Amino acid sequence: MKSFIEVSPESHFPIQNLPYGIFSTADNATHRIGVAIGNLILDLSVISNLFNGPLLKTQQQVFQQTTLNRLMSLGNEAWKEARSTLQTLLSESNSALRDDQKLRSKAFVPQSSAAMHLPADIGDYTDFYSSIEHATNVGTMFRGKDNALMPNWKYLPVGYHGRASSVVVSGTPIHRPNGQTRPKDDEPPVFGPCRLMDFELEMAFFVGPGNTMGEPINIKDAHKHIFGMKWEYVPLGPFLAKNMGTTISPWVVTMEALAPFTVDNYVQDPQPFPYLKHEDKYTYDIKLEVGIKADGSDHVGTVCQSNFRNMYWTMKQQLAHHTITGCNTRPGDLLASGTISGPTEDSYGSMLELSWRGSKTVDIGNGATRKFLQDGDEVVITGYCRGDDFRVGFGQCTGKVLPALSLK
Amino acid sequence: MKSFIEVSPESHFPIQNLPYGIFSTADNATHRIGVAIGNLILDLSVISNLFNGPLLKTQQQVFQQTTLNRLMSLGNEAWKEARSTLQTLLSESNSALRDDQKLRSKAFVPQSSAAMHLPADIGDYTDFYSSIEHATNVGTMFRGKDNALMPNWKYLPVGYHGRASSVVVSGTPIHRPNGQTRPKDDEPPVFGPCRLMDFELEMAFFVGPGNTMGEPINIKDAHKHIFGMKWEYVPLGPFLAKNMGTTISPWVVTMEALAPFTVDNYVQDPQPFPYLKHEDKYTYDIKLEVGIKADGSDHVGTVCQSNFRNMYWTMKQQLAHHTITGCNTRPGDLLASGTISGPTEDSYGSMLELSWRGSKTVDIGNGATRKFLQDGDEVVITGYCRGDDFRVGFGQCTGKVLPALSLK
Ligand SMILES: [Ca+2]
Ligand SMILES: [Ca+2]
Ligand SMILES: [Mg+2]
Ligand SMILES: [Mg+2]
Ligand code: NI
Repeated sequence: MKSFIEVSPESHFPIQNLPYGIFSTADNATHRIGVAIGNLILDLSVISNLFNGPLLKTQQQVFQQTTLNRLMSLGNEAWKEARSTLQTLLSESNSALRDDQKLRSKAFVPQSSAAMHLPADIGDYTDFYSSIEHATNVGTMFRGKDNALMPNWKYLPVGYHGRASSVVVSGTPIHRPNGQTRPKDDEPPVFGPCRLMDFELEMAFFVGPGNTMGEPINIKDAHKHIFGMKWEYVPLGPFLAKNMGTTISPWVVTMEALAPFTVDNYVQDPQPFPYLKHEDKYTYDIKLEVGIKADGSDHVGTVCQSNFRNMYWTMKQQLAHHTITGCNTRPGDLLASGTISGPTEDSYGSMLELSWRGSKTVDIGNGATRKFLQDGDEVVITGYCRGDDFRVGFGQCTGKVLPALSLK
Repeated sequence: MKSFIEVSPESHFPIQNLPYGIFSTADNATHRIGVAIGNLILDLSVISNLFNGPLLKTQQQVFQQTTLNRLMSLGNEAWKEARSTLQTLLSESNSALRDDQKLRSKAFVPQSSAAMHLPADIGDYTDFYSSIEHATNVGTMFRGKDNALMPNWKYLPVGYHGRASSVVVSGTPIHRPNGQTRPKDDEPPVFGPCRLMDFELEMAFFVGPGNTMGEPINIKDAHKHIFGMKWEYVPLGPFLAKNMGTTISPWVVTMEALAPFTVDNYVQDPQPFPYLKHEDKYTYDIKLEVGIKADGSDHVGTVCQSNFRNMYWTMKQQLAHHTITGCNTRPGDLLASGTISGPTEDSYGSMLELSWRGSKTVDIGNGATRKFLQDGDEVVITGYCRGDDFRVGFGQCTGKVLPALSLK
């Protein structure tokens, strides 16, 4: 499969991918839905009338929205039809768009001239803790090797509610937070800028159709409620500091684009309860990389190479567990994986683990090292799946640490 | 001050109160803003043209909205003006509304014929844990008397992110959740309906104007960001079960209506950090009562009599702390107090405390007792401030426990 739009082999956005995002341009401030192809964005608001399949013919207005929520609410048969329409329209053998220069000039926008926005109105945001290597590392540091995993960890995907208001799109700088810390256990806490500022390498998925309160999502149907995936990067500070910003990538890669990259699920022992059991593969081979660029430097020093296949709990299990109490979900809800660490020391997904609680330094190139993040550091997360001669990628997710504000 | 609308002395809704809510009627399904007065609702969408003060003259469309979010976003000078306009319009000495029978027949709706809805589109919901008696009771049960309060508890208002999607209005029944529990510490968990279903007696406030990410709300300005208060009742089950439903009262009482009922703040020792310090009174004498009505019974047995004045941390401190890291808030965000327990055994705000972890029974009248909630139980929360010859109340907040769903 090939598009009439030129796509380099290293691009994250070939015709096999087609991720969705929300963008605007200097001459049109309206937020609109776009699909990334090579270095371009196809503006779906311009071609909404071309979605003429049986399901979308009467739903073309979803492509005129300012967020993806309504497209997400339509469900996976509609998403398949949208993808197939887009692949046909962009295919090198299809003349409809290819040969209509006037339409092309309106419908394509260079990514370099677009501003990206949050892809959805996020009603609720949940943060799981589903990487066994990460949970073991953190548990070992704080409770010792023998009590590293909490007793319930292998029975259910542990999760926390997050703060939806503080989810921001890649590129948004984040101030180092002020807060209380207690450097010495036997002395009162002190107030000031957070000293141990960290990142967390995560991925996340968007809920498609929600569920009604009181009616859990059966694990057999969970995939129908999962729209697509994206990056997440959570800077971390002291108490409460997970509310100060969660950076996500602008492009949402659909589960269909990821389907060729499934691998065996993690072998779970003990066996999960029936409500958490599924046999189909829902684990993905996605190469993940975190780099740090110091202020004024142009070198991004790689500090972590991990893989999403390291996850213990699958997204289907997370969603089935999340709703088992009767908790309702809504289109656009965001569920994050938790920090994704691999088994080797260079695959840990946070500075806390990479510097082993500050007991060693991490090389970021050009002779510079870090234990935690410094003011001016920019964190750069990338990742992709590797096909035969193409990549299905997520683009970049970046965030820069600004100094703490001095309080009036 | 007296209204031309008749209000009985026991009513929660005299002209001194004027709480806001969102309602609809059988003949008009549109959600609209109303103000409770006696047994009636004044439909603000019908009289929005009468808000002619300097701030609201150009903002009359906020009274035509389907939620309170836009009114909340205007700030406390606008709220004062709205209250003053409403008190004038409803006053017995003002003829404008009183003598216009045609307008009155359109503008007033009996509360008994209205359906109440969520008052705001809630972006984020935070649950604090700010009652020292409650925190001490729970800590004593699970960690013993000597370690009852966690070391940070008196240094900052501990809070958790909640689940905005599961906030429902009073009257919505809630199924007993299914989930995992571990009855014996040395055996694997079991799956099934939650056995120890509980309530939490709480109050909550709505954020008015929000704050930008990175810019904390100064404690001196915190009151300008607090729109009004309401009931909250959180049924509780096993792991994750705080996501299955949070019931709130339909009426939002403004801080102005509560202002006459301030009392001294809790004496805090140690002194809080400067960013948490304020001298003005922001603690309120609100009498709180929880009753349980068994299925088929018409008797509501009082199980708890508490008071909001028992809070250790004030709402101003909660909001200043919430934003100190730079966390942004938005109009309509809901911040809950945490369970409000008093110092005596009959003032505890949860069955966990009232039955002291199931070690004793609680009388609900007619010879019935409870340790935790049973299927069919309806929890009824009421509360009010007592003035000289009137009450400023919150109405009722109710929720019925339905049996757990059997899973397919
Ligand atoms: Ca996280
Ligand atoms: Ca609570
Ligand atoms: Mg929300
Ligand atoms: Mg939320
Ligand atoms: Ni039901």
